[in-house]
Amino acid sequence: MELPVLIATLRAALTHNTTHLLRDQLEDVHPADYAAALTEFTPTELWDLLTALPRAEQAEVFGYLPTSEQVKLAIRISRRKLAPIIRQMSSDERADLFNRLSAEQRDTLLPALAQAEREDLLRLSAHEEGTAGAIMTSDYALLPPNLTVREAIEVLRLEAPDKETIYSSYVVDQSRKLIGVVSLRDLILAPVSMRVDDLMNHDPIYATVDMPQEAIATLIAKYDLLALPIVNAQQQMVGIVTYDDAMDVAAEEATEDFHKTATIGKLESSVKHAGIGLLYRKRVFWLVVLVFGNIFSGAGIAYFEETIASYLALLFFLPLLIASSGNAGAQSGTLMVRALATGDIKLRDWGSLLGKECIVAGLLGLTMSAAVIGLGLWRGGPDIAVVVAATMMLVVLVGSLIGLSLPFLLSRFNLDPATASGPLITSIADVAGVLLYFSIARWYLGL
Amino acid sequence: MELPVLIATLRAALTHNTTHLLRDQLEDVHPADYAAALTEFTPTELWDLLTALPRAEQAEVFGYLPTSEQVKLAIRISRRKLAPIIRQMSSDERADLFNRLSAEQRDTLLPALAQAEREDLLRLSAHEEGTAGAIMTSDYALLPPNLTVREAIEVLRLEAPDKETIYSSYVVDQSRKLIGVVSLRDLILAPVSMRVDDLMNHDPIYATVDMPQEAIATLIAKYDLLALPIVNAQQQMVGIVTYDDAMDVAAEEATEDFHKTATIGKLESSVKHAGIGLLYRKRVFWLVVLVFGNIFSGAGIAYFEETIASYLALLFFLPLLIASSGNAGAQSGTLMVRALATGDIKLRDWGSLLGKECIVAGLLGLTMSAAVIGLGLWRGGPDIAVVVAATMMLVVLVGSLIGLSLPFLLSRFNLDPATASGPLITSIADVAGVLLYFSIARWYLGL
Repeated sequence: MELPVLIATLRAALTHNTTHLLRDQLEDVHPADYAAALTEFTPTELWDLLTALPRAEQAEVFGYLPTSEQVKLAIRISRRKLAPIIRQMSSDERADLFNRLSAEQRDTLLPALAQAEREDLLRLSAHEEGTAGAIMTSDYALLPPNLTVREAIEVLRLEAPDKETIYSSYVVDQSRKLIGVVSLRDLILAPVSMRVDDLMNHDPIYATVDMPQEAIATLIAKYDLLALPIVNAQQQMVGIVTYDDAMDVAAEEATEDFHKTATIGKLESSVKHAGIGLLYRKRVFWLVVLVFGNIFSGAGIAYFEETIASYLALLFFLPLLIASSGNAGAQSGTLMVRALATGDIKLRDWGSLLGKECIVAGLLGLTMSAAVIGLGLWRGGPDIAVVVAATMMLVVLVGSLIGLSLPFLLSRFNLDPATASGPLITSIADVAGVLLYFSIARWYLGL
Repeated sequence: MELPVLIATLRAALTHNTTHLLRDQLEDVHPADYAAALTEFTPTELWDLLTALPRAEQAEVFGYLPTSEQVKLAIRISRRKLAPIIRQMSSDERADLFNRLSAEQRDTLLPALAQAEREDLLRLSAHEEGTAGAIMTSDYALLPPNLTVREAIEVLRLEAPDKETIYSSYVVDQSRKLIGVVSLRDLILAPVSMRVDDLMNHDPIYATVDMPQEAIATLIAKYDLLALPIVNAQQQMVGIVTYDDAMDVAAEEATEDFHKTATIGKLESSVKHAGIGLLYRKRVFWLVVLVFGNIFSGAGIAYFEETIASYLALLFFLPLLIASSGNAGAQSGTLMVRALATGDIKLRDWGSLLGKECIVAGLLGLTMSAAVIGLGLWRGGPDIAVVVAATMMLVVLVGSLIGLSLPFLLSRFNLDPATASGPLITSIADVAGVLLYFSIARWYLGL
């Protein structure tokens, strides 16, 4: 069902007081679509439409709502009504919501949950943001090693409704240490009397709770995993991260890196929903820093004032020379930042990449020199043409090498290479461009 | 096992001629790790190490090798030896490899495959690159609607070894039209005598073969799917795209968009392995185009030569004013490009975003004006300070609005909004900055 049709259907059900019929009418609508439609209604309407669904689906749809909407509801709806939904949510989504609530709201919510859920929630929400612990769920399927395949499938059948996935099960010893993983596919294919510990993979891929979430997403993508088991410092099983959460993490990280390329700080919300204050704060810092960075270019120009006064025609070429230096730098910088982020290249690759970049940038510089030499002849005569062509060659080379090296330098000092954004590289390349241009001009024109 | 240890183990096995023991020694090594280790060996060594594995794993490890390595092997190894591996590969990986081979190599390979595989291969590799058809696999599990749950599980058990996944099964009618989807989880939970068509979801999410692969990845992420069924124009089931392929597509698309933000064309290979010629070709086009774009800035400066000659102090502020305009534009442009790519915003959101951007950019402009007014007083006196502050306010506003609008404009004309890269926006904002600055100066200073 198309979104506008779904919204109209829901609107009609509210108007005619027939929300109790929605359950059958919309049986095959995906919870993600239902949630998308719900965001078009007021909180009170949203609540009526949400509670028209069967209990299990309520929690699923609620989980697909943007966290900002969840928080709005959590504040408005009495905890007695909300608790049954919260209880049915998957444990990672519940911890996410909990972390967005104020201390007071948390205190209101906690007593509505059962002892075990309360402990689970407090444990999960205690992990630092950005780590595996903060995105994992504790709803995973555990199997003892001594079960037969027949018994294991029976266990999974009973537990399935409460588990995030039953396609991977985790085998632990008495001290809850992870000793193996077995897939439902292997269980289905194996003879029913085989023991789980004869079937399982004894050397599973796993991660620790304090690993950064990007690294988790990378592991899941590299090994094509459905879920990655997470262990604590004692190698005890504490949770899993599923592929769908890994996809979300990868998309968020890419967005964050994109924004960094343009000196924008980390936005916790989408651009569409971000407030004016937030957008201002995330953009102003680097803009102001770069103003002061560009003072050096200005000072460079001021230093060469006499040269410029004698040859005002030189000014015509200033924008295109410094822009070319910055553009070439932005290109090589961006290539490095992205390749470092995806793990395509490592710190130790700097040397071989530098060699290659010298040749590529040299060729680019030659091409660009050829492109401007005619322009130099036309606007400034043969002497200026030589100066402009030589400067172009040099600034493209220097800009490219700055762009290539800055991300490695930042990485080397454990700073995020993505900070080497286009605007930062451009500002540095600009200064180099101004100094090179007028130095060459002064020398060659004999001023 | 750590990669260096694995490589050393493989090296030792080659030296002591004990590759036949590797099978037991490395039972729990993940095929992705085995493949990563193999890339450190020569093609002949690689082949010996690959064929030391059981047949089924050979194909899996081969599938994890970079396509460039696969092609190298495909060319060197006789088709009689290679065919058994190719036959066992999943159908989408096989089609990928096939598409990278020369026409001659394809003709050598095809006769080594059985009739059905040959037809499947030719069908899959006929789809246009970048579409769902080009990344889908035909190894999906089909179920007739009239089976019982017990029979369906039995069918899946028999077919599992040849299928990409058995966690989602697809139900088709006699004309092969997709009529439903059922998960293994639902099958396991349902009473064994229930019929598949009573259990299945009758309104499954699906896509068509000609849909762009980014759209496929977005659908899979949005609905948290394990696999997305792909149908042809007659609604007949033709393949599935699995979540792991969607993750790869999302990462590739993000890399491509990253490179576009810095005017780099689409690289078919990683930066590390890309040749000098390829890197040159992908970078030179926009660098040269932007040189000519910057001629307008130069012409603007030349036009105001008299103003500049009278007030050389104005030049000091030129770099920081035009850089600020470009930086503010790169910020708003990048925010829009990424939000359009992730589907966070649509074309129709332009109006409301424009209103918000006017306020945010106004505030940014005011802050930046305040930041430069002291500098203006110090370097140029009160008159120049007024000119610089007023120009800063205006250029930040104008730069931001250009950055915001250009991606929408490109989208509106069905061009890729990512073409509105930082360097392009910067070049346009530069021209605006030069013209605004000297116009204001000439007017205010009464020249």
